[in-house]
Amino acid sequence: MKIKIELTQNKKEKPATSALGFGKFFTDHMFILDYTEGKGWHDPRIVPYQPITLDPSSKVFHYGQTVFEGLKAYVTETNDVLLFRPQNNFKRLNLSSARLCIPPVDEELALEALKQLLTIEREWIPNAPGTSLYIRPFVIATDSYLSVAPSQTYQFMIILSPVGSYYANGINPVKILVEQQYVRAVAGGTGEAKTGGNYASSLKGQELANEDGYDQTLWLDGKEHRFVEEVGSMNIFFKINGTVITPALNGSILAGITRDSIINILNYKQIPVEERQISIDEIIEAHKNGQLEEAFGTGTAAVISPIGELKYLDEKFVLNNGEIGQLSQLLYDTLTGIQTGKLEDPFGWIVKL
Amino acid sequence: MKIKIELTQNKKEKPATSALGFGKFFTDHMFILDYTEGKGWHDPRIVPYQPITLDPSSKVFHYGQTVFEGLKAYVTETNDVLLFRPQNNFKRLNLSSARLCIPPVDEELALEALKQLLTIEREWIPNAPGTSLYIRPFVIATDSYLSVAPSQTYQFMIILSPVGSYYANGINPVKILVEQQYVRAVAGGTGEAKTGGNYASSLKGQELANEDGYDQTLWLDGKEHRFVEEVGSMNIFFKINGTVITPALNGSILAGITRDSIINILNYKQIPVEERQISIDEIIEAHKNGQLEEAFGTGTAAVISPIGELKYLDEKFVLNNGEIGQLSQLLYDTLTGIQTGKLEDPFGWIVKL
Repeated sequence: MKIKIELTQNKKEKPATSALGFGKFFTDHMFILDYTEGKGWHDPRIVPYQPITLDPSSKVFHYGQTVFEGLKAYVTETNDVLLFRPQNNFKRLNLSSARLCIPPVDEELALEALKQLLTIEREWIPNAPGTSLYIRPFVIATDSYLSVAPSQTYQFMIILSPVGSYYANGINPVKILVEQQYVRAVAGGTGEAKTGGNYASSLKGQELANEDGYDQTLWLDGKEHRFVEEVGSMNIFFKINGTVITPALNGSILAGITRDSIINILNYKQIPVEERQISIDEIIEAHKNGQLEEAFGTGTAAVISPIGELKYLDEKFVLNNGEIGQLSQLLYDTLTGIQTGKLEDPFGWIVKL
Repeated sequence: MKIKIELTQNKKEKPATSALGFGKFFTDHMFILDYTEGKGWHDPRIVPYQPITLDPSSKVFHYGQTVFEGLKAYVTETNDVLLFRPQNNFKRLNLSSARLCIPPVDEELALEALKQLLTIEREWIPNAPGTSLYIRPFVIATDSYLSVAPSQTYQFMIILSPVGSYYANGINPVKILVEQQYVRAVAGGTGEAKTGGNYASSLKGQELANEDGYDQTLWLDGKEHRFVEEVGSMNIFFKINGTVITPALNGSILAGITRDSIINILNYKQIPVEERQISIDEIIEAHKNGQLEEAFGTGTAAVISPIGELKYLDEKFVLNNGEIGQLSQLLYDTLTGIQTGKLEDPFGWIVKL
């Protein structure tokens, strides 16, 4: 399918680096691909960034039939534009779609569309340290029909947002609260899909954490409220007595691409890493024994988010004196180094525009 | 707050009764109420039915921050317009909103808005047997901001859809498949809220049931895959050895208004009814002992949906010879009789326009 291109006549002014934040500003163009039952995906096009106009009965407003992805483009010191494992994002998008009864998109077409869009929006990619262009592919169900059934029409879109450094003053450890009442997902649900409902479900726990003075929620499993799942909307890693442990993918945890990259880097550096079930009791026990050396979240937005304090029930546990640990720093430097082209990529992860 | 009214200049043609179906056609007007953080809900207005125009980054497209309700208006033989327990819907809307970190709407304003909208759309309420005007209040998060946090702006809307008889040829029993792999919700999740994510999550199970020749999914609990929760998007009742049993509200089951009405009618008619945990094993056991007399789903759309066959693992269990049971018929006749004004309402449920 050939991608039609319609360029804007009114380019926006670009925001100052200091004003960027996360996901507040959007570029001049977007990619759109339509789906109609019986016809398949059709009419790929890059058009001026514009509002979406939908009937109030559209399924996306009522039944949450949506999936999305998040990845970043970086500009190097030599002015190359780099993408980090973008094929994995489109592959995961289709896995999410399968769970939500949304037809899969052609992953090659999606990547080609992204590349063409980035070429057009090249000057929107910020180059200050820590900045990048956040890429948000997403699919919404557009049928004007209140029946609870998969939509027969969809739109797949890609929008782009220049984003600032996630950490204004270097990477600072966050304080996390272990959530007791609410859960994010359960095996058999949609937890391993990147779909709106999981994020909607997480808002309440996040609110409770914030009210208690904590930055993020540590989610336990939905069955026993005992095994660690995710932190905020990130995967989580613990370094206990020299070994790095992250919850195994169990159907309710998102298969993070940053998570997978960190596991690969750890293996490459011959640092012991285990994917397995890990209970909150084991973590508290390790802390009490002085063996919980570090903990950190991983995700596209923050890359590595070190954990400085954990609150479980009414007890507080400070990790690594509330400072960023050596391993967290090493992994952050390594991964962002590869992503921004400052370090060699021994994994074949980088896709150059 | 005074509700502003802008009437349409172009009334639509009304569909034929035979074409109605469910949620396909919408009336000439809709109600809109805006929310802005710091300002609260504002600008209540009835306007011509029109598309919603939103930025592609609007939170509703990405993070599923939505809630909705469903209820019906009926026209009586004496041309009165009746609503069934509408206060309960707006109360539940606010309970759902609390779970989703959405600010509550003024329930009295919402009811007043609905009444004014219905007065304007009076001639859209179909009067053929089994038909009604389906009412869909809903809230969507409208912030143009990709941060995973509650929106600071929302729209509350009410749209109306004339709907046909759910059963073209009287109420026919449905065949249901007990779902083994997927779950709809778990305690601590959003199961008791009426929010998009639950419905998105249910689509896959429904697809599997349909592929196997079944109409609906019977959902078991997310923890043990053992206790009955809901059927399709309805609550479920079993009559075992003269006693009616429905799963107790446990945090993952929707507190159906039809469910509550059925319990009240059963009490009124002095038919024993229990709200308690009930396992699939108990149901199969009762069937094998010849004590499973009837089973039916309850919801606004179908009112009562008798179950004629149950498939669990690879075994099929026919209920009541696949025919509608006496109790199902009695409850259907009683509830629809009250709703349409044909029977006296001893419960004070009916709100006359």
